[in-house]
Amino acid sequence: MPDKLQDVIEELALANRILGNEGVLDAFGHVSVRHPGDPGRYLLSRSRSPALIEAGDILEYTLDSEPVRPPTAHLYAERVIHGCIYQARPDVTAICHHHAPAVMPFVIAGKPIVPVFHLGAAIGEEPPFWDQQDEFGDTNLLVVKPEEGASLARALGDHPVVLMNRHGATVVGADLKELVSRAIFMCQNAEYQLRALMLRAFTLGASPTLPRGEIELAGAISRLPNVVGRTWEYWSARVGGGSSVAAAPSRRVKRVKPARQAARRKTGRRK
Amino acid sequence: MPDKLQDVIEELALANRILGNEGVLDAFGHVSVRHPGDPGRYLLSRSRSPALIEAGDILEYTLDSEPVRPPTAHLYAERVIHGCIYQARPDVTAICHHHAPAVMPFVIAGKPIVPVFHLGAAIGEEPPFWDQQDEFGDTNLLVVKPEEGASLARALGDHPVVLMNRHGATVVGADLKELVSRAIFMCQNAEYQLRALMLRAFTLGASPTLPRGEIELAGAISRLPNVVGRTWEYWSARVGGGSSVAAAPSRRVKRVKPARQAARRKTGRRK
Amino acid sequence: MPDKLQDVIEELALANRILGNEGVLDAFGHVSVRHPGDPGRYLLSRSRSPALIEAGDILEYTLDSEPVRPPTAHLYAERVIHGCIYQARPDVTAICHHHAPAVMPFVIAGKPIVPVFHLGAAIGEEPPFWDQQDEFGDTNLLVVKPEEGASLARALGDHPVVLMNRHGATVVGADLKELVSRAIFMCQNAEYQLRALMLRAFTLGASPTLPRGEIELAGAISRLPNVVGRTWEYWSARVGGGSSVAAAPSRRVKRVKPARQAARRKTGRRK
Amino acid sequence: MPDKLQDVIEELALANRILGNEGVLDAFGHVSVRHPGDPGRYLLSRSRSPALIEAGDILEYTLDSEPVRPPTAHLYAERVIHGCIYQARPDVTAICHHHAPAVMPFVIAGKPIVPVFHLGAAIGEEPPFWDQQDEFGDTNLLVVKPEEGASLARALGDHPVVLMNRHGATVVGADLKELVSRAIFMCQNAEYQLRALMLRAFTLGASPTLPRGEIELAGAISRLPNVVGRTWEYWSARVGGGSSVAAAPSRRVKRVKPARQAARRKTGRRK
Repeated sequence: MPDKLQDVIEELALANRILGNEGVLDAFGHVSVRHPGDPGRYLLSRSRSPALIEAGDILEYTLDSEPVRPPTAHLYAERVIHGCIYQARPDVTAICHHHAPAVMPFVIAGKPIVPVFHLGAAIGEEPPFWDQQDEFGDTNLLVVKPEEGASLARALGDHPVVLMNRHGATVVGADLKELVSRAIFMCQNAEYQLRALMLRAFTLGASPTLPRGEIELAGAISRLPNVVGRTWEYWSARVGGGSSVAAAPSRRVKRVKPARQAARRKTGRRK
Repeated sequence: MPDKLQDVIEELALANRILGNEGVLDAFGHVSVRHPGDPGRYLLSRSRSPALIEAGDILEYTLDSEPVRPPTAHLYAERVIHGCIYQARPDVTAICHHHAPAVMPFVIAGKPIVPVFHLGAAIGEEPPFWDQQDEFGDTNLLVVKPEEGASLARALGDHPVVLMNRHGATVVGADLKELVSRAIFMCQNAEYQLRALMLRAFTLGASPTLPRGEIELAGAISRLPNVVGRTWEYWSARVGGGSSVAAAPSRRVKRVKPARQAARRKTGRRK
Repeated sequence: MPDKLQDVIEELALANRILGNEGVLDAFGHVSVRHPGDPGRYLLSRSRSPALIEAGDILEYTLDSEPVRPPTAHLYAERVIHGCIYQARPDVTAICHHHAPAVMPFVIAGKPIVPVFHLGAAIGEEPPFWDQQDEFGDTNLLVVKPEEGASLARALGDHPVVLMNRHGATVVGADLKELVSRAIFMCQNAEYQLRALMLRAFTLGASPTLPRGEIELAGAISRLPNVVGRTWEYWSARVGGGSSVAAAPSRRVKRVKPARQAARRKTGRRK
Repeated sequence: MPDKLQDVIEELALANRILGNEGVLDAFGHVSVRHPGDPGRYLLSRSRSPALIEAGDILEYTLDSEPVRPPTAHLYAERVIHGCIYQARPDVTAICHHHAPAVMPFVIAGKPIVPVFHLGAAIGEEPPFWDQQDEFGDTNLLVVKPEEGASLARALGDHPVVLMNRHGATVVGADLKELVSRAIFMCQNAEYQLRALMLRAFTLGASPTLPRGEIELAGAISRLPNVVGRTWEYWSARVGGGSSVAAAPSRRVKRVKPARQAARRKTGRRK
């Protein structure tokens, strides 16, 4: 069991860093997982930005969101979100509360996010909205009281996602990996939905386009030797690999290879 | 022949990483190439995210999308896309199926992507749409059955690109480099088309602009010594090169040079 | 006292780099702090791009924006912004003038930025506008004269933020950390507000969505073992950490782990 | 003289990499400078992607765009743009032809780019449009014939910028640094103009906003010790510097500091 627990803790820390890296979380937002050996407890980091979280930051909480051991660090103020949902939803093993930029325009405008592509179906048919103002009047919008957490859990119902007006969203999953996927796909879905709505609105008029003769002539540009050589060298350099060397796997996205090495690779290709 | 094959495999792995790096592919999407020595076979990675693919991941398939050797890893579920198109299109040597963010709003809104700039002409006059729902009713939108692949290949016809409603797109090429260019230019074209449509819709009213007197006076800001020194130092630092040292080629996009080195470069320039 | 001063100088240099890194400042814009030991003076860098500023670049100014010691470097032309506001606002300890991309569309269109999410409340109820043209006619829009600085300070009044038409914005704070937060949250707020306004305008028509049957079937895609393995490997590689190793913390955003190491991590997982 | 020439060559190579890094150029586009010792010649790279260009790539051309020395590499097809403008404009010392993403929507929609903020004034009052179709009918839109280059130079007239329908733009400068600034500011201006136009169109209806009570309460969130500690650690880690150590200057944009080091910095801060 201790090994299992340690694995889950490592995986939770990694999930935090992944969601920080993929643009779901920034300085704010948090991810929790139900304790693998005790459904009456959950694991959540001390108050820290997700991108920086390591296994050593993870603490254990009761479902009343009280730390099991006396805390030696700041705790997230909004941890009742997690406790209240774990109480209400025995099927839920992982929870993420976030303010992802892709989702914010929808919760500000009060417009529903609906699945618009196959992966977006992970958010379910139409996520419910919850407005803290309705039940609690003016607040600072943070969900910090048990009754606020319970109210949010009621709004979530048996959905995988609940939208929070002027604040963000909360996502749940049957396991940590499903949760991470759902949070990321939800953001992609929101981005695509906003742009698809724009397209629908704009194409009332005629679309600008190339005349047919230009399409035919310009369609051949990308087959010019001059162009093929230039683009392939560029895209290869950015990805950090060559075409004739043993696979030098991409070390980072958007990196430009030192020109000196790129030049060496291409030796002999000059006329 | 073996060397030729190995070169093609390396190139295919690199093409995967390039398309992963340029924002066409992410965890999903795949690229294949027809076997250089046997038009009845094609090469495609095991199920893996394109950015991570190496030569050792590439497998060989028949045009029925069966692996030639017993697989020891997960396979892409949607490989029939590749097999069915290679069967229908002898002129095609390379295929990419993707869900690029630039393309998704169009396939969600059901609005055509048309060439709007010279490089965008690579997608042909107007890519056809294919809706899996039309022939197969409710599915999970993945193209996994031979009859689904064959239907998609029919919709593609002799076009270089086919759009897939609520799912993504499939692009073909006469060779791997043409394919990679076409996929990248298609995404750029879609981005520009969306924004051009916005511009068309918005410029009904007057555009905000600087008064003539301000244009004249502010037009000289970028020639102030104060400003020239500051901008040049900044942009040079970001690209990783100095103005007075032997060309230190850019090592990565968006990198900011350590200030210590930057300071050293500028020694003696202070008054 | 000297230690306290040095700490403030280091913190100010860091604040510059943070705001340069978070997209508030680029080659332009500047951040100052009131002198910790003398409210009649303030600290501000010599003319340099914020991303590159180190403690050694920080100079001391009187509230008339004159350097206390004879300068040996170019000074910011617009430093009167800082001096005039410190004169007018004893409660202000830190000031940032910027042209953040998120804010520019609003100050160009002359449309108010208003708090649209909880963190955006840091900008106050509705930031006032200041148009240099009103009082000074055609200028190059830079705030360089004491009377221009004083006019801007009057427009700011007791608000935390003032918007400057066709130019940018100026933000103040009770301390440097509040200022940095406010400047960053202001940019996020502006981005979300623009997109929320778009959403409001566009959803007059029906939103595109997946048919109910597709939502149900496609909702299960992210639970396919094939897919879970692929996405988790990809997102882990991008963040630079593995799921089964001791936490290898993220070293940079968007980095793709060398495939060789990734392959090693996954050894034994192939069937 | 030779030293002066070598300096200009290094600067031209750096200008290419800067414009590649700042999003003005990608695999395409090129930058030239008039020969410092002979106004009848200009310097331009061999056909290569700007981000990769080093001093050794720079070649010398006559104003008829013929290489002075027999070429041993591919040349840019569109170099007549440079030769023809240097012929027509003795005041011009540097030229950049580009297809920057920020500019493309305007040249596709055929909508003018006008200065909308102080730095944007560098593009002049209203850049003229040039449509290759008008004089030359259907082409592949590349400017490769001397008469095409001469026509473009006529359209440019005495402006600093000319827009090219469905293709891109060409920018000129009195020197290389003015040119680089103008090209970058032009892209920023185009981005801001597009978004300002959106704002103008959208704010017909009421803007969504927080209720007054929430603004007041939520305005204090960023002063919570819990929040200040978390945000400051996060933003510091991303920029690569600490608050209490000697300035560790930012090494790259968007990097996240290894958590181990971050943890070390924070030792003793836990209660």
